[in-house]
Amino acid sequence: MKKLLCLTFVLTTIFVKTNAQSASFIEDSIAIKQISDITLPNTVAYENLRFLCKKIGHRLSGSIGAEKAVQATFNMLKQAGADTVYLQPCMVTHWVRGVGEQAFIFVNGKKQPLTFTSLGNSEGTNNKWVQAPIVEVKSMSQLHTLGNAVKGKIVFFNIEMNQQYVSTGRAYGEAGIGRRAGAAQAAKYGAIAAIVRSLSTSNDDNPHTGTMAYNDSFPKIPAIAISTNQSNEISKQLKQGANVSVQFKSNCKMLPKAKSYNVIGEIKGSTLPKEILTIGGHLDSWDLAEGAQDDGAGCVQSIDVIRAIKQAGLQPQRTIRAVMFMNEENGSGGAAAYLENAEKQQEQLIFAIETDGGGFTPRGFGLDMALDKKEKIRSWAKLFYPYGVYDFTGVGSGADIDDLKKLGTAVAGLSVDGQRYFDLHHSKLDTFEQVNRRELNLGTINMAALLWLISKYGL
Amino acid sequence: MKKLLCLTFVLTTIFVKTNAQSASFIEDSIAIKQISDITLPNTVAYENLRFLCKKIGHRLSGSIGAEKAVQATFNMLKQAGADTVYLQPCMVTHWVRGVGEQAFIFVNGKKQPLTFTSLGNSEGTNNKWVQAPIVEVKSMSQLHTLGNAVKGKIVFFNIEMNQQYVSTGRAYGEAGIGRRAGAAQAAKYGAIAAIVRSLSTSNDDNPHTGTMAYNDSFPKIPAIAISTNQSNEISKQLKQGANVSVQFKSNCKMLPKAKSYNVIGEIKGSTLPKEILTIGGHLDSWDLAEGAQDDGAGCVQSIDVIRAIKQAGLQPQRTIRAVMFMNEENGSGGAAAYLENAEKQQEQLIFAIETDGGGFTPRGFGLDMALDKKEKIRSWAKLFYPYGVYDFTGVGSGADIDDLKKLGTAVAGLSVDGQRYFDLHHSKLDTFEQVNRRELNLGTINMAALLWLISKYGL
Repeated sequence: MKKLLCLTFVLTTIFVKTNAQSASFIEDSIAIKQISDITLPNTVAYENLRFLCKKIGHRLSGSIGAEKAVQATFNMLKQAGADTVYLQPCMVTHWVRGVGEQAFIFVNGKKQPLTFTSLGNSEGTNNKWVQAPIVEVKSMSQLHTLGNAVKGKIVFFNIEMNQQYVSTGRAYGEAGIGRRAGAAQAAKYGAIAAIVRSLSTSNDDNPHTGTMAYNDSFPKIPAIAISTNQSNEISKQLKQGANVSVQFKSNCKMLPKAKSYNVIGEIKGSTLPKEILTIGGHLDSWDLAEGAQDDGAGCVQSIDVIRAIKQAGLQPQRTIRAVMFMNEENGSGGAAAYLENAEKQQEQLIFAIETDGGGFTPRGFGLDMALDKKEKIRSWAKLFYPYGVYDFTGVGSGADIDDLKKLGTAVAGLSVDGQRYFDLHHSKLDTFEQVNRRELNLGTINMAALLWLISKYGL
Repeated sequence: MKKLLCLTFVLTTIFVKTNAQSASFIEDSIAIKQISDITLPNTVAYENLRFLCKKIGHRLSGSIGAEKAVQATFNMLKQAGADTVYLQPCMVTHWVRGVGEQAFIFVNGKKQPLTFTSLGNSEGTNNKWVQAPIVEVKSMSQLHTLGNAVKGKIVFFNIEMNQQYVSTGRAYGEAGIGRRAGAAQAAKYGAIAAIVRSLSTSNDDNPHTGTMAYNDSFPKIPAIAISTNQSNEISKQLKQGANVSVQFKSNCKMLPKAKSYNVIGEIKGSTLPKEILTIGGHLDSWDLAEGAQDDGAGCVQSIDVIRAIKQAGLQPQRTIRAVMFMNEENGSGGAAAYLENAEKQQEQLIFAIETDGGGFTPRGFGLDMALDKKEKIRSWAKLFYPYGVYDFTGVGSGADIDDLKKLGTAVAGLSVDGQRYFDLHHSKLDTFEQVNRRELNLGTINMAALLWLISKYGL
């Protein structure tokens, strides 16, 4: 590439010109430009993420990694210049994978090794081999049609993400029913285990884990995930009339709940400190990789919002609070503690935003709040345009803050360019190397800008 | 991530509703949806790119790789279903790197190996060692101020890309003056070589090549690039008062021009076949990696536009022509031949678009044409919104089609999310693995949609 498309520059110029009439627009533009100029060339958030990923590694709730990450992000918030940094105790799910996951597949009697991952919160086989023929279903309703025909079998939920959707999140939500509820439903009909097709947008050999839930009315059968390539291969064999059975053993199990913490840092508001704006990501991550995009990125961005506002010399009128939520992936213990504490303390949580779609280039904000509040935020749209955010039509926030709506909190989420996310998500591919420094920083800039505006104008 | 932001779905719904009044809007929406549904889950373009990258490798003009790529894309266009596929002869720059690039740096006499790459089109040292103290400049004007003080020295153009710009392309354009013109200007003052800081948005150890040009009035001194990390280190040493000199040898040289080809495939227009819409990328690439993002992506997208339109059963009224331009990187021989042929044949090239910013998620179109034509394209904006394209304010097209403006052609470029591009660009990192299948396909979809609309409504 030699010639250039100076798109953003042009946009900036246009907006500065057409909005010249508004003094507050110019003032706000300047504040956001300060945040951007400080943040975009910076390596602080990126290096914080490198530390979480490379020095600590995975941070599954209850693990040593999670414990280390609590201390590390506490220190990062201090270094970011937060006025107050503290830990908020919470009780978290403590599921462990154990060691010795092993599986074989038999196609017409021919034995081959099979790569898999136990699903989060699943029971294991207690190191005993489990073996049965597999029965493929392409949807939950197909399982219900089969009913007791799956008795004694292993149900293979081969539910593909719909690649025709532009929104990968939508495809994930729909196809995820097999992972979330497959084992519980299969157990209802007497199946002895569930295998799910990994929720991935890529055809590759990596199994993706993720949380599942049992139904207390039915047996807790083990649930595992296999790769998309392997799923396609098994499906092909079954279509050709082959006898396919799977043998596997695992040692995952659920332990009693463990004590852990949300990590919180605040810039105290100057005139209305009791009105609190929350920004958060989740600190826990799955154990197959480093939890870089999910959701180390959201954590270091939240910390960096504090740094950016402090370093720009901006003094918010309302309190800005960064929260590293613990236990989002498999229990929401951190979210529950945050809500409970807010209720107890009668906190005025006027706004909360979570970023948990990866540290990719931002495109918009999902807004879940009353229409007048949405309209207020949308009235600032032009301020974000030079930084790549143009879309304020989405809905939805994040798993850790959604329940704050009970308190009347207006909640939001950062919408990012999500095409790559589910290639990596919950698999061994979710590593630091997949995160781009500038994309990460653009997310920080836009969230800091939004928080700055709400801290100034309220909501 | 568990909760979802179904942004695009919401947007689609909104637009389908608010535009229900227009029959042509619905018809066009359906056509574009057909293109998208066929293309987004597809692996054809991605596998074509894998072939170009992994089976052929780099495709520098005049190389065996370039020759193989001509044949390969000819076949791909046939497979895509083009009505006509042909080769258009052109004369291309034939620069070769040779083997045996080697360098050392001496800091206060202490010798260390130095990694570098010769710049494209540069003269080499004919395998002889060249050694001199280095003089750092941070801008071209600083060189002019130093003037003859650089005589006998090696000028080190340590011009950083401005990381405060949201547009990486803008930063590249500005900082690129050292690479493009540094050697010519340094030679004017008697310098014996030029070293440039790599044009990269990342701090790493990879040198990035790229084309340079001499000024015939001054000696043709060798020009090389070193990594950003190495540049920072040298700058630090110089600031501390160290004596720094560099010794290097190289064997790159310019050979006589070589014969090569643009590769062209067409869908013939049904009612106005003489009105031609061009879509193109460039087939040649630098020799340090695989030319995946630059610009293998643009080539396979252009081919895939033909496939998508054919496979959707859409019959354009005007001719759609995909062109793999040869020699964009260091000579524009392919572009010259395309223009010359169009003039000779009096072709009606009413529109041309090039994609050469990487196969990243598209965000908009740069438009370089009369205002009424821009307005016509902008009137279709809502049709693109569900596929991620929202921005029609950019200007600029592509190096291979820009001169078509002489013929009155309206030219455009695909604007993509460019945050990652210059980390990879012209370096050994530009490999197939950096390209995401869905991002690539979204580019195809939006360009196919634009071509379809222009083929239907004219411009």
